[in-house]
Formats: sequence, structure tokens, C-alpha cells
Amino acid sequence: MRAIVFNDTELSYQPHYTPKPIASAVEVEVLQAGICDTDLQLIRGYMGFSGVLGHEFVGIAKSGRFEGQRVVGEINCACLNCDSCVHGFTNHCPHRTVVGILNHDGAFAESVWIPEKNLHAIPESISNDEAVFVEPLAAAFQIPSQLDLSQLENIVVLGDGRLGNLCAQVIARSCEQLLVVGKHSEKLKRLSSHGIATSLLSEVNTGRTADLVVDCTGSPSGLSTAFQIIKPRGTIVLKSTFADQEIPNLAPIVIEELNIVGSRCGPFKTAIESLTLKEIDVTSLITSRFSIESAIDAFEAAQQKDQLKVILEINC
Amino acid sequence: MRAIVFNDTELSYQPHYTPKPIASAVEVEVLQAGICDTDLQLIRGYMGFSGVLGHEFVGIAKSGRFEGQRVVGEINCACLNCDSCVHGFTNHCPHRTVVGILNHDGAFAESVWIPEKNLHAIPESISNDEAVFVEPLAAAFQIPSQLDLSQLENIVVLGDGRLGNLCAQVIARSCEQLLVVGKHSEKLKRLSSHGIATSLLSEVNTGRTADLVVDCTGSPSGLSTAFQIIKPRGTIVLKSTFADQEIPNLAPIVIEELNIVGSRCGPFKTAIESLTLKEIDVTSLITSRFSIESAIDAFEAAQQKDQLKVILEINC
Repeated sequence: MRAIVFNDTELSYQPHYTPKPIASAVEVEVLQAGICDTDLQLIRGYMGFSGVLGHEFVGIAKSGRFEGQRVVGEINCACLNCDSCVHGFTNHCPHRTVVGILNHDGAFAESVWIPEKNLHAIPESISNDEAVFVEPLAAAFQIPSQLDLSQLENIVVLGDGRLGNLCAQVIARSCEQLLVVGKHSEKLKRLSSHGIATSLLSEVNTGRTADLVVDCTGSPSGLSTAFQIIKPRGTIVLKSTFADQEIPNLAPIVIEELNIVGSRCGPFKTAIESLTLKEIDVTSLITSRFSIESAIDAFEAAQQKDQLKVILEINC
Repeated sequence: MRAIVFNDTELSYQPHYTPKPIASAVEVEVLQAGICDTDLQLIRGYMGFSGVLGHEFVGIAKSGRFEGQRVVGEINCACLNCDSCVHGFTNHCPHRTVVGILNHDGAFAESVWIPEKNLHAIPESISNDEAVFVEPLAAAFQIPSQLDLSQLENIVVLGDGRLGNLCAQVIARSCEQLLVVGKHSEKLKRLSSHGIATSLLSEVNTGRTADLVVDCTGSPSGLSTAFQIIKPRGTIVLKSTFADQEIPNLAPIVIEELNIVGSRCGPFKTAIESLTLKEIDVTSLITSRFSIESAIDAFEAAQQKDQLKVILEINC
């Protein structure tokens, strides 16, 4: 089948890739998929991944209870038997594979194999373009599932990219004092159009007033910025991972008695529900589309500063 | 007066140091003081401090409501007017000085000047040797003041040094499943004698089972170790600061959705109460004593692996 494969250092389009079978998983014919910051980190060496990339997708289930229906898939494929799984933390199963990230061929291919319990049917009212955002939107909804935002007065989201935009839209639903700080005025304008306050990083002047900073920059410099604007005893949510880079000194965590909260995958049901209700604008984030055959160009585009979501069209 | 002064790169004993006056503070004649890991970090450049070092001490108040009494002093000297102070977080006042750490001459001198509201009288039943431990013991008691330990099954303290020992003794009061991991069998034996389970770092084999890891190593390698033994969604308390060194990649915080909690100064009253009740053994941690004139040797000693608390005798 056609697939986008990363091996050690090289990203390539392969017209005749032989997929690795995944026991007791459902084949999903991928309609389209989205390129995520994690994909860009993976091709820089993060996680040492080899195989088919891609974990944001919508497709059609080829068998099982969702046969013939449009589906999206949760990316953590758990053993369901270990201590983590028994306690309900399947996303943290130490034996898990992660679609397109860890020992599991991903969705930048004609088909991807996903355990049936990870699949969610997509209602008619959600378009394919919207459905591709279920995975990253769920990750944004993980923040209010971890923290009670209603008690916080000042929240700052760092980063005006794909994930920053989604996190900001989610947080804006429960916090009036939200500021998004970014480096790109065009991207910030998209958030202003939703009534969200924004500031260029070069002009930010909040002092140490933020109760909560959500770092979506995908760079260790985000943590440095967070240290400069967070209140003592405040909380910093880390949303993005990054390949090895210079990390700032962590002394402010101790001195200011900060709370750092890691936040990863989130509730698919909440994301699907909010897309059904048209509460979050996702489709305007799509800045370009490529066929799977042009995936190398698509990855090039996704790394450009003026791009937000780059879509790969596969079986559509 | 006699004082131990650090200027830029040089630590020196000065027989005729002229103290910097501190407005509306009480002069405390220092009886004895303790060398702390933070002092060792300060002489390696942490905080860019210049002046008299020392923040663990017992002395005699020369004026005010404690005149003539033995006292210890909280080290954060706050403005009492700012937003942090008004909300009760005087330890986080952005305008604060910190005794022997930030813009405030410390206690490795014949006298130290401390705001009266920072002073606590020491009861007769607490010896001078014990009283020197009030400040670091309060820092250990900050952990149960920040986190409910009663719900946690497995707690690991990393570090068998001064602070690790105190944190372990404090945590052992409310947690049966405590393990202290260190590099020094002699230091671990001291904890075993209190009925606390210990393991050499080279032999540790906990898997990812710890609900809480308290890092008292004073080194970024402690965080790497913590990442290897913490459960997904577990909490890591950072107790120690360090001068710039190589920090591990922080991706595990996001991937495992960890909670990192910075923890610094703690409740003096609780520490004094527990010393009054002889609940915590501190005096056996004293491994050597030096006169203030021999402070350079004392700092040398404090950096040796076989040492725990090094005491400086000043006016005693």
C-alpha cells in the first residue's frame, strides 16, 4: 500500500509498503490525516521511531461493529491487563503501542490498524476536515479534565500554532482572562477573531501575574518564558514534547514553588461532542492540503511559520 | 565583626567585616550555624550572591520582644505590602531579601539582622545543636504542608544527605512504604537505624511504582532517576536547587503526565514543635564542627561525601 515511512533519518513516500499486522485490530481505510508537531519532532529523532507516521486521521472501518462507518481512533493501544489499565489509565499502559509514534504503524497510509475499543464513530454532521482534529482537540480538552480552570483568574497560553490555537479556544470557554502569546501576528489574528486577547511575545508585559501558563510552543524556550510570567505557586501545563534541546535551569520551580503538570492525550468523546455542537472552529486552521504522494512537500510545508494544519489526502 | 564572605568567586574569612545595616531588623548574636547544600551551590555561582553566607542558625536577640532569648529566624524577609504578602505568601514576596542568599547578609558572622516577625523563640528543651536544624527541618515539613501524603502508597526519597535524611524522617511519620535511595551506605545506615527502608542507587529496582518521588539529590541526575521510578501520573517533589548543569529532557513529564512540585521553605512552628517532642533525630547528623575562623576548612569538609551537617561555632 501507499505510505509515508520514516526510517532512522529518512522520510520517504513508499508506493508499495507492506504493513506490519497488528493482532486483533480493525483495518481502517484512511480518508485523510493531519500533520502534527509531534510528527515534526519524530522526524528529528524524538522517540527513535521507525515506521509509518501519522496519528491524526479519519477513515472508514473495514470490519467489526463500526464496519462501513467513518471513525477516528485513540492512539494509545493498551494491554488492558496491567496495573495501569486495570486502574483506568490505559493511556499510560507501559506495554502500549502508540499509533504512528511507538511500535505501531500510523495513519499516513492507505490503511491503519486500530483496536476496536479505540475507535469512535463520527456523526454525519462532522466533516472529514473537522474529524481530523478530534485527536488534537481531545488533547486540548485534557487540560480542563486535569485542572479546575474556573478558580483561575489569569491564564496565558504560549504558542499560536496548531495546538496553542485549540487549547486557547477550549480554555476561553471557561476563563475570561485568557491571553495567548505568540510570535506570529497573522496566527494571533485568528484568535482575536474569536474574541481572545493576544500579544506578540516581543511585546508581552504581564509581570508575574499568570495563575496558569499552558506551554504549547514545542520548544524549551516556552518554559523559560513561562518562568518569567507565572505567579509564585502558579501552575505551568506542558503540552508539547520536544527532541533533545537545551533545557532552562529548573531552579524557579523550587524557588517559586511552582507546579508543573504534564498533559498529553485527552477525551475523544468531549472533542467529538464539541465539534458536533460547532463550539470550536477547527477547519479555518487548515492552511494547505497535499496528496499522500506529495507527503514530503507536505512535511516541508508543515514546518513553515505561516502554516497551521497541513492535511494529507489519502483515500478521498 | 568576624564573618565568612563570598564575593563573586572567592570565599574568605574576614576578621573585620563591616555589616550592611538592615532597616527595622533585630540584631541577633549568632551562637552557631550550619552549612547547607544551598551554601555550597552559592559558592559555585548560584543566585550570583555576594556577601555574608549562612541561613541556618541559632542566636540571641539583642533587642525587641525576644531580647535576651535564643531565637531562630525565617529567612525570607518580605515587604508585607505587595499582592503576594497580602495573600499570605510572604515567602514569595517579589521584593523580599533572603538571609544569606539574596541581598541580605547571612548568619556566618558574629551578628545577623533579622526582621522581628521572622524570629521564633527556642524553648529551653531544644539544644543549640538542635536549633540549627529548625530551618532545614521546616523545609522538610513543607512537603506534608503542600501534599496529602496519607493517600500515597509508595514514596521514594532520592538522596541520603542532610536534606534527604530530614525529609525521610518527616515523611516516615505518615507513610509506611517509604524507601530512601542514596549513594552512600554509611549514610543510608543512619536511616535504617530509624526503621526506614533504604537502597543503594546502584541496586535500586523499583520499576515504575512510586506514587511520589522527593528529589533531595541537589543534582539534575536526581530528576533523571525520578523519571525512571515514578508511576505515570505520579508526583515528583523538587526540594533542591542547583547551579547550571545539564538538565535531562523533560518529555517524560508530558508523556507520563507527571506532576512536578517545587518545594522550598517551610513552617518553623511545626519544626520547633517536633524538635520539642524529640520526634526527629537531628543531632546525630552533625559530623563535624569548626570555629568561624576555620570556615574555609568547614566548607571543604561540607563538600566531602562522608559528611552530613557541618556546624560553625561563632559566639559559643
